[in-house]
Amino acid sequence: MELFLEEMCFEKDIETCLDVWEEDYTGWQKELNNLKNSEEVNFVNLPFTEKYITQIKEWWEKNRGRFKYYVNLGIGGSSLGGKALVRSFTPLHRWESFGEDGGYFFMENVDPQDMKILLEKIPLEETLFNVISKSGTTVETMSQLMIIWEILEKKNLLTTNLIFTTDPVQGELVSIANDYGIKRFEIPPQVGGRFSVLSPVGLIPAIVAGIDADKLLEGAREVVEKTLSSEPSSNPSFIFAGINYNGWQMGRNIVVLMTYASPLNFWGDWFVQLWAESIGKNNGRIGVGSTPLRCVGVTDQHSILQLFLDGPRDKIIYFLGVKKRDEDVSIPSIFREREKISYLGGHTLSELMKVEREATIKALKEKNIPAGLIELESISPKSIGRMIMFFELSIFYAGKMFNINPFNQPAVEEIKKYIYGSLGRKGYEDYS
Amino acid sequence: MELFLEEMCFEKDIETCLDVWEEDYTGWQKELNNLKNSEEVNFVNLPFTEKYITQIKEWWEKNRGRFKYYVNLGIGGSSLGGKALVRSFTPLHRWESFGEDGGYFFMENVDPQDMKILLEKIPLEETLFNVISKSGTTVETMSQLMIIWEILEKKNLLTTNLIFTTDPVQGELVSIANDYGIKRFEIPPQVGGRFSVLSPVGLIPAIVAGIDADKLLEGAREVVEKTLSSEPSSNPSFIFAGINYNGWQMGRNIVVLMTYASPLNFWGDWFVQLWAESIGKNNGRIGVGSTPLRCVGVTDQHSILQLFLDGPRDKIIYFLGVKKRDEDVSIPSIFREREKISYLGGHTLSELMKVEREATIKALKEKNIPAGLIELESISPKSIGRMIMFFELSIFYAGKMFNINPFNQPAVEEIKKYIYGSLGRKGYEDYS
Repeated sequence: MELFLEEMCFEKDIETCLDVWEEDYTGWQKELNNLKNSEEVNFVNLPFTEKYITQIKEWWEKNRGRFKYYVNLGIGGSSLGGKALVRSFTPLHRWESFGEDGGYFFMENVDPQDMKILLEKIPLEETLFNVISKSGTTVETMSQLMIIWEILEKKNLLTTNLIFTTDPVQGELVSIANDYGIKRFEIPPQVGGRFSVLSPVGLIPAIVAGIDADKLLEGAREVVEKTLSSEPSSNPSFIFAGINYNGWQMGRNIVVLMTYASPLNFWGDWFVQLWAESIGKNNGRIGVGSTPLRCVGVTDQHSILQLFLDGPRDKIIYFLGVKKRDEDVSIPSIFREREKISYLGGHTLSELMKVEREATIKALKEKNIPAGLIELESISPKSIGRMIMFFELSIFYAGKMFNINPFNQPAVEEIKKYIYGSLGRKGYEDYS
Repeated sequence: MELFLEEMCFEKDIETCLDVWEEDYTGWQKELNNLKNSEEVNFVNLPFTEKYITQIKEWWEKNRGRFKYYVNLGIGGSSLGGKALVRSFTPLHRWESFGEDGGYFFMENVDPQDMKILLEKIPLEETLFNVISKSGTTVETMSQLMIIWEILEKKNLLTTNLIFTTDPVQGELVSIANDYGIKRFEIPPQVGGRFSVLSPVGLIPAIVAGIDADKLLEGAREVVEKTLSSEPSSNPSFIFAGINYNGWQMGRNIVVLMTYASPLNFWGDWFVQLWAESIGKNNGRIGVGSTPLRCVGVTDQHSILQLFLDGPRDKIIYFLGVKKRDEDVSIPSIFREREKISYLGGHTLSELMKVEREATIKALKEKNIPAGLIELESISPKSIGRMIMFFELSIFYAGKMFNINPFNQPAVEEIKKYIYGSLGRKGYEDYS
């Protein structure tokens, strides 16, 4: 993975803007190194932890023959990473598909229509349901569990077609699993939802979808090692954080991530949660944090790009691209006499996407709008493992710069009391 | 449709903030009225224009028997409205599905993998391809046309399975249609892409998907009539524009639209284009325009909401909800002994979505963050027609307030020269 810094234009040059943290840097690197060497599993040493892959593979080898469909029941961090990962390697006809080739569903939302259709159309016997909730009390996910529980129980499929991914020792899912003999996988207690894609939360859907999980971790490990031994000026995660913090201070309160490959689009949503929930905090005096905006290239060139180019200078814009696509489609050389379109013949769609991405970056640079390119070698487990860790480590540095704790989410915890109150949960009568 | 103003909290009360335009209002209403009475079709009188529906229905009645699949080839305004409309009334198992029940595809992007799978998997004989481009030169759409043209030609399906939606008199699609006998529908010349959902651009996919297009226009007509006869204080489109403009002036440069019903989610993307491309402009001195951000409720409560609640006060947040859902799913009353989840039993999923929406609004209000509710009666063509016109008319007023032309998109036109140059189009050699 490469972060092309020369593509960025800024008010100050990058070195100057990173200089302010020169004294802090050594301490931060030490802290990261401690996380890596910690005995407790955390987001930094997660890719060095092989036991989960072994457990999942062993279980999957015994059970894979029975399943054509996979339904992920989880929301937020219990969905976004696994969803982005699986879509990266799943062709269109197997995505949310009830067709004969099987399909993968990530039912994050509790929309009644979608849920109804899912339950009507999916062949239950051939479906693996994975309920993911660290606490075992997530309102949306537990509602979904109760709905499918009744259905699976009637068909005697509870112990065969249902698994839980949850805390190793506590919570309702642990207790239900123990009572009814449901297969259960662990979420490491120190790993928060939005950092959990390399834990069983993301590894189960990945392995079920046939993704090489070892390569995924290998890519992530590389980035951890490289980051730990990097000088500030060659540390992409540190630079990404620094650019965004500096930009924010100068009024650039929007950080755009524009993906230029359909299989990668959901990484935009994953990044939104990672950045927003980690950095969007009150630092004790004021609210801090830039707002992440995920866009889809080339599509959104025909939508929001007009605003990026001519509107206020309140954005930093990153492009997520791929150097080489495995598959391509050629545009045939037809309509030769029609000058206004004939030039398209002989090109390929992946060329077109690249040319449009480059044209957009060029136009932004001409207007002195900060635009950076994050380019993967290919859509491969290793490249994606690298990208995941690049972004996750950037959160560590950004937390330091914004001077907040990037690992909690106090405000969303607050809202839950109103939801509990309205739904009549005991002990929350005051909030109804 | 209702816009609940009492749900909004502001630095100033709404009346005060709208007062500044008291003198302009009569003139703006007159201008709108002129648009309505204009002989040229424009976005205001489009819902009063019945000829397109008649033409499309007539053609569809003769041809519907042959098609199970619909593929929309268009990007930006040639896709977003139709896509949102069709998804509003299409259950999950027919969305981007190759299954026996048929499916609707909106291929906006030129991703090679998606395109390859589409062409491999779709039964060509049973598929209607609709190529939409006003100019007939859109790079992405014309590339797609060239790819499917070769395939359809070989199977002798050009005149039977392909239609064009384009300018009535000029451009490559008109010329190709005339040369080869391709069925062609019109985009009214004065209607821009992002305002075209009630023209054949949106009406064809709507009618193909079995949506009652007459009701759609009826809803839109109602809103035009009501808006024209409204005082400022009871004109939702005017108020929406005024709130956003005032907010923007006070540093709220992000306008969030959070949809609380999966079938409505793509209206978020439609709104993003409508707002960003219309209002994101240089007014001659500076860049203006707030940045639209589309979110999905309840899902994004577990993602970006932490930032909304605790982060900087730079947002105005609208919720798009539905009063009554036709379909619902009950959560069974099981796990009665488990207090932490048993309270969920007996509720329904649509209740859950509503409760969560209300809890979120409440939490935002407690922190004095502006939060407004736009609530549809139901997911019906009439309600959606109303909503479309509500947003479109708000653009008219916002254009006045931001003092820019909301109907052009100069910057994206600029980028095209680089794309043409890189791809070798004649006359653009200087931009390669």
